[in-house]
Amino acid sequence: MNTAALLDALRAAVGAAHVLTDGDLSAWELDWRKRYRGKALAVVRPGSTAEVAAVVKACTALGVGLVPQGGNTGLVGGSVPDQSGEQVLLSLQRMNRVREIDAANLTMTVDAGCVLQAVQEAAAAQGLLFPLSLAAEGSCTIGGNLATNAGGTQVLRYGNARELCLGLEVVTAAGEVWDGLSGLRKDNTGYDLRDLFIGSEGTLGIITGATLKLYPQPAARVTALAALPSLDNAVALLQLAQARLGSGLTGFEVMGAFALQLVARHFPQLPQPLAASPWMVLLEQSDTESEAHARGLFESMLETALERELISDAAIAESLEQSRALWHLRESIPLAQAEEGLNIKHDISVPVSRIPAFVAEADAAIAARFPGARLVNFGHLGDGNLHYNVQAPEGGAAADFLREHEAAVNEVVYDTVVAHGGSISAEHGIGALKRDELERRKSPVALQLMRAIKRALDPQGRLNPGRTLSA
Amino acid sequence: MNTAALLDALRAAVGAAHVLTDGDLSAWELDWRKRYRGKALAVVRPGSTAEVAAVVKACTALGVGLVPQGGNTGLVGGSVPDQSGEQVLLSLQRMNRVREIDAANLTMTVDAGCVLQAVQEAAAAQGLLFPLSLAAEGSCTIGGNLATNAGGTQVLRYGNARELCLGLEVVTAAGEVWDGLSGLRKDNTGYDLRDLFIGSEGTLGIITGATLKLYPQPAARVTALAALPSLDNAVALLQLAQARLGSGLTGFEVMGAFALQLVARHFPQLPQPLAASPWMVLLEQSDTESEAHARGLFESMLETALERELISDAAIAESLEQSRALWHLRESIPLAQAEEGLNIKHDISVPVSRIPAFVAEADAAIAARFPGARLVNFGHLGDGNLHYNVQAPEGGAAADFLREHEAAVNEVVYDTVVAHGGSISAEHGIGALKRDELERRKSPVALQLMRAIKRALDPQGRLNPGRTLSA
Repeated sequence: MNTAALLDALRAAVGAAHVLTDGDLSAWELDWRKRYRGKALAVVRPGSTAEVAAVVKACTALGVGLVPQGGNTGLVGGSVPDQSGEQVLLSLQRMNRVREIDAANLTMTVDAGCVLQAVQEAAAAQGLLFPLSLAAEGSCTIGGNLATNAGGTQVLRYGNARELCLGLEVVTAAGEVWDGLSGLRKDNTGYDLRDLFIGSEGTLGIITGATLKLYPQPAARVTALAALPSLDNAVALLQLAQARLGSGLTGFEVMGAFALQLVARHFPQLPQPLAASPWMVLLEQSDTESEAHARGLFESMLETALERELISDAAIAESLEQSRALWHLRESIPLAQAEEGLNIKHDISVPVSRIPAFVAEADAAIAARFPGARLVNFGHLGDGNLHYNVQAPEGGAAADFLREHEAAVNEVVYDTVVAHGGSISAEHGIGALKRDELERRKSPVALQLMRAIKRALDPQGRLNPGRTLSA
Repeated sequence: MNTAALLDALRAAVGAAHVLTDGDLSAWELDWRKRYRGKALAVVRPGSTAEVAAVVKACTALGVGLVPQGGNTGLVGGSVPDQSGEQVLLSLQRMNRVREIDAANLTMTVDAGCVLQAVQEAAAAQGLLFPLSLAAEGSCTIGGNLATNAGGTQVLRYGNARELCLGLEVVTAAGEVWDGLSGLRKDNTGYDLRDLFIGSEGTLGIITGATLKLYPQPAARVTALAALPSLDNAVALLQLAQARLGSGLTGFEVMGAFALQLVARHFPQLPQPLAASPWMVLLEQSDTESEAHARGLFESMLETALERELISDAAIAESLEQSRALWHLRESIPLAQAEEGLNIKHDISVPVSRIPAFVAEADAAIAARFPGARLVNFGHLGDGNLHYNVQAPEGGAAADFLREHEAAVNEVVYDTVVAHGGSISAEHGIGALKRDELERRKSPVALQLMRAIKRALDPQGRLNPGRTLSA
């Protein structure tokens, strides 16, 4: 490879100031969880779709692989270069314009590099809602959200990133621009290219822009906390809440007792409004009428749940502050876990109806194989998505536990997931971290179809090589 | 081609009783709108996924093309064989089992050949809702709905067929079975094969089963009718209704004055509750609380609309019967049109915000080029989807008008659609009818991507040849 020629071409494409080769490039080369540290041939920061296309053409002409990156907040090592020093890191961060808001059509068209929170704020400034919401929203970009089909806490009502996107602009492996931006809610003119690029982790094309769905802002958001003796009851409570609140139910998060114990241990200042219980559920309701109306619906629904003995106790937030405090409790679980020490994370989903059986079986299998291991179980129960994490035994050397047992723990958890018709990656994607696991777990027919598509759209394998699928 | 060998193989695959070659096969060979009459080499009716796979293998081994068909209610000639007598018609109608309902997961798994109404009824029997709803629901199959990504009257709230499907079972062009059935609402393990097959009109694979999303049944459904002076006001009314009713707004249908005149002319027995007005809007609200609650929200919202002079008059249905009568009025428009004589149909969409400008420009262009032509304009305004149909001049010979002007009328309408960022096929698909139009209108990059995918998944071009894309 002629590195000098490539760098010249890249500088011609985006300007010398935006081709970085020296100094500390760890902002782009080291992943969010600090598990992957790569070495880029160069970090290239195009400022427009045409510049992205020029970069792709330069790289493919010289046979160089490209790794696209948004906010670099991915959790599966999908957006940092490998260690070869031969891959170009293509950062979309400079492309951060809100191109257009069409309030009457409830759509917004944005550059891929817009930070999620900026997208939310641009919608809110028009009195509208962009509902995608997740922990990294202050740093992650909408292009990355779409490339990984991000989930988060509002999926129950609004769907994943996929369901919030009407159209895309994509630079193909050949360096051509597909203008699939569209504000249409119905368009049956040919194959669904949009959804093929969404979730493909930059391996089929590079998302440079998107048209997003907006919603009216709800008049009020109210949360409640309920204590339950079992996950069976949590599933029954979900059914009751869905029947009574319909799409007003915008959040349904479950938290295991040990997860909340860890929060109490490491963040004792956070109030926990209800006495300890095997499970807690955080419910969120969004109402188009008023806070009083939302509270009334919650009260009546939770009374029924108490009468049916689905829940043992409940509290409805009395103010926006109390609502925020409940969410803060939920969001502190991963931080409390980190304080407690290294742990083995899983981002799994099963059908909602299978959650109790899955947890019972996985808990039993982990207890039998890894005595003392502690289960930090919480997540988006309304979507069947649990963060089923395994913490090393109390007082043990966590690093040793992980080194010795991580692979075996994963095998137990994923075997149980698959036995219940579940997914080994609900919302985080595959990237580098789960690629080999995917190739073991996915059906041969599905893998064959995926490879055929990859070959068709990126015949030379230049786009995010080795991510999602092995090269 | 060795026809005898193929017929033997087909009989071996599905049983001789299910390979039809003689007698009147028009139920399978003639399309719903009676615009396409083909001749099948044989009509084959497999009873299971394995039998579908065997049929595909038999056909591809002998180089024969296959046309999959559900209820044969498509509107674009996508599901009948061509006239060569060399294509096998594969009917999914015998595959009509509801495989499983998982109420706690709000999902149902069905064979592709289930009639849509049977799917709706199976959900209703469990107190649940499958919301896809369209005129042909008594005959069309869910497999066909998914293959064409059907729309209908509830898209505003629940999305197209695509958004109502969680997983698919598909027989590939190689005759292999992809088991992508899944009850998961979050699953980010690889490329989105599901959405690639949805809407591909049987050209990439044959859908044999699906896992569908269900919803709780609403406690009440209430409709209202509003009279408006302009489409600008209709767009403003939609915004108001969305803000006030949120996702309770499940229908928003617009009807032009001339469309309702035709209904009055041909179905004078149907009551029209409001005095004639340039436009009428039919609103439907689904409420999780009660009829009284829904009516209260409607009253307050329509009062605001009257105060703001968005509407000139309104009526809220007082009973289920009155609600049905309003829908009946709306659904009688296509029938009244047919009674009035031949006409040129369009199934177009534009961003909701562009609807007034699109209609003004298209109306003016049609009036200038085709004096006396009458515009029957109605549709799903909430989705930006209009059935913008052109009726021959009063008293003229409709057949002559169509023969002389259909192509030119289409060109005027589609040029205007494209100028407003719209789609030439919102919910009906491409099939044979719009294939050449698609190839003229779609961007070369999109067509290139589509062809690459077609070649990758059906390299010999055996699946529904010549539909969606030219062979």
